[in-house]
Amino acid sequence: MKNTLGELNHPARILLGPGPSSMDPRVYRAMLAPMLGHLDPDFLRIMDDTQVLLRRLFDTENHLTFPVSATGSAGIETAMANSLEPGDTAVIAQAGFFSARMADMAARTGAEVIEAKSEPGFPVDPQQVREAARGKKVKLLGLVHGETSTGVAHDLDAYRQVADELGALLVVDAVATCGGMPLRVDAQRLDICFTATQKCLSAPPGLAPFTAGPRAEEVFRARKSRVTSWFFDLTYIMNYWGGERTYHHTAPISMVYALREALRLVDEEGLETRWERHRRCHAALVAGMEAMGLSLLAAPEHRMWTVTAVKVPPGIEDAKVRRRLMEEFNIEIAGGLGPLKGKIWRIGLMGYSCSEANVLLLLAALERTLAEGGFKLSAGAGVAAANKALSHSPALLSR
Amino acid sequence: MKNTLGELNHPARILLGPGPSSMDPRVYRAMLAPMLGHLDPDFLRIMDDTQVLLRRLFDTENHLTFPVSATGSAGIETAMANSLEPGDTAVIAQAGFFSARMADMAARTGAEVIEAKSEPGFPVDPQQVREAARGKKVKLLGLVHGETSTGVAHDLDAYRQVADELGALLVVDAVATCGGMPLRVDAQRLDICFTATQKCLSAPPGLAPFTAGPRAEEVFRARKSRVTSWFFDLTYIMNYWGGERTYHHTAPISMVYALREALRLVDEEGLETRWERHRRCHAALVAGMEAMGLSLLAAPEHRMWTVTAVKVPPGIEDAKVRRRLMEEFNIEIAGGLGPLKGKIWRIGLMGYSCSEANVLLLLAALERTLAEGGFKLSAGAGVAAANKALSHSPALLSR
Repeated sequence: MKNTLGELNHPARILLGPGPSSMDPRVYRAMLAPMLGHLDPDFLRIMDDTQVLLRRLFDTENHLTFPVSATGSAGIETAMANSLEPGDTAVIAQAGFFSARMADMAARTGAEVIEAKSEPGFPVDPQQVREAARGKKVKLLGLVHGETSTGVAHDLDAYRQVADELGALLVVDAVATCGGMPLRVDAQRLDICFTATQKCLSAPPGLAPFTAGPRAEEVFRARKSRVTSWFFDLTYIMNYWGGERTYHHTAPISMVYALREALRLVDEEGLETRWERHRRCHAALVAGMEAMGLSLLAAPEHRMWTVTAVKVPPGIEDAKVRRRLMEEFNIEIAGGLGPLKGKIWRIGLMGYSCSEANVLLLLAALERTLAEGGFKLSAGAGVAAANKALSHSPALLSR
Repeated sequence: MKNTLGELNHPARILLGPGPSSMDPRVYRAMLAPMLGHLDPDFLRIMDDTQVLLRRLFDTENHLTFPVSATGSAGIETAMANSLEPGDTAVIAQAGFFSARMADMAARTGAEVIEAKSEPGFPVDPQQVREAARGKKVKLLGLVHGETSTGVAHDLDAYRQVADELGALLVVDAVATCGGMPLRVDAQRLDICFTATQKCLSAPPGLAPFTAGPRAEEVFRARKSRVTSWFFDLTYIMNYWGGERTYHHTAPISMVYALREALRLVDEEGLETRWERHRRCHAALVAGMEAMGLSLLAAPEHRMWTVTAVKVPPGIEDAKVRRRLMEEFNIEIAGGLGPLKGKIWRIGLMGYSCSEANVLLLLAALERTLAEGGFKLSAGAGVAAANKALSHSPALLSR
């Protein structure tokens, strides 16, 4: 007898990992908008709206601004596959898992890839990139704005300067930062920048908002070889998302609905107010963690606001704590990747998940879980410190 | 003053183009299931369910059965990019737009691509492929089961025989047929087969269900070079969808919910009942069209059941008719692509859109639209013929 499966029935988690983040009820609702054909005039208007809102998000006038029809990693691949070809040289600043992925994708284009690596928990020093690139004709300098694998942020302006010195395109992976930390594509002259829907935008995973400026477009046009991936070949995609709306592939319609709504909510809140919300929740989380006796992987000046890496204290079992948080409190946080597995927790406060209430709940839940695990801490200290930090830093606008 | 955008507000269309098709309310509802992390035990169970249901859909035991995290074209690219590398030879049977796309993707791998083309409206004769491949060591024979650009279906068994003679992998694009026309991956020995969610499965676009058998897996493992696309590299993807659940990229969670629900509905209806529903609605549509004096592009023995190509009669303006159908009746049908632009209409009866009611409504609406455009027809003849066809062919199971 064939087993039959029932309808979905799982709990509503509080998503405090490095993505996906929890979603606003309005974003869920947007996915219920009736399905449309991908060339329906009503859908074309929705695409137009989405592009207008994406330009506001990235703070750019770039014509080439649209969501790649796949998850965040597809944004990295679109950037690498369209910019690089055999004979080119790229420098990738490697501060963790996701910049290693960028280097992997760059290498698959046939380009030579120079890597400048940092120790886990540290950003790559721009000077190191300068030295690694010395004497080379570098076409592209790639980096990850905020490394979700370590909680480390890079200084984009310092990297813009290095890229200028090298005469290279600056490619910025803003998957975990865009919408949660200051980033202005035009003012900071980022040639290519992309993000993902399920992080600070709090839409479902499935799209990678992408923008490229005139210098990048020129590089795409000057290619000698075809892009090896048809799916990610911007030459064609832009006929669909650009003026002509020529059919390329069927857009993931419901995901575009959700993204449009999520961007509408970013617009409603205002970019700067949203950045500030992420900054102050992060500050409260850090104050609470430190008051509980936990220490952070990254130094204060290198920390992302949106994903925080906390060291697992000695004697405490990483996976057990995460399992307890999920089973008892319905909270998801993440462990470390690769060499940091078992050594850190990664806590995301992104988009809709980034709220004072979630900071306080997590600290309270973590306190109980750690105390049960035998970790010595001063009861209530974490929540008290977070509350103090929040009251010293009133929100620009209450949500 | 910055313009602000409102919530989505567009009509619910009746989607009778070549996809996306209309969706069952239960599939909409599934997308409202709470967002989960991509490594959450509850999500891993949902992935397991989805794989079980996909194996039933494809009628296969293949271990390597999962949804590629992007739209249908990504299924073609995953097949080509993983199977082929420089030095290989592929033969692609080209009967229209989507098989041309397959040939394009095959060529981007660096493989030599031999094309065997048919005239528009005709399938490719297997004999033609045999001759084109003569004297070549062919690694892969690719074809599109049902060409949505022309409404033409290929005989898979005849192609299996050619592939056997050539010692080649048989790769079948079943984007517009899987779930709507007979297709059994194991019994028909299709080495690689893929489809898309927004056609006969009636889930939103955004995933490409994919399956590959042992011979294909062997080819993937024996590659000398890396797959040029990281995103579509099965080596890594299968660690996530296979037993280990190692993180590759974040799955499009809400889309997986929708696909699981859509597959659950396929399972509830039963594959054969579902195929039969598509056959009889197609037959009724054809009877109605012919009774109205319209003629079809493809000969009866070559027609797909799921997408029907009808010739635009002389004196009638293609785009005007489609616009009227949309504006007056809220019905979407499609025009022709490439050389067939302006010459045919493409009518999809797929998944949830494939119902007796939709056949009758379309015929009635088309009759009025064509009559207003000056086309001579016998009033009521289309609907009468369709009703007669339907009553001569009772449903196996009423919906």
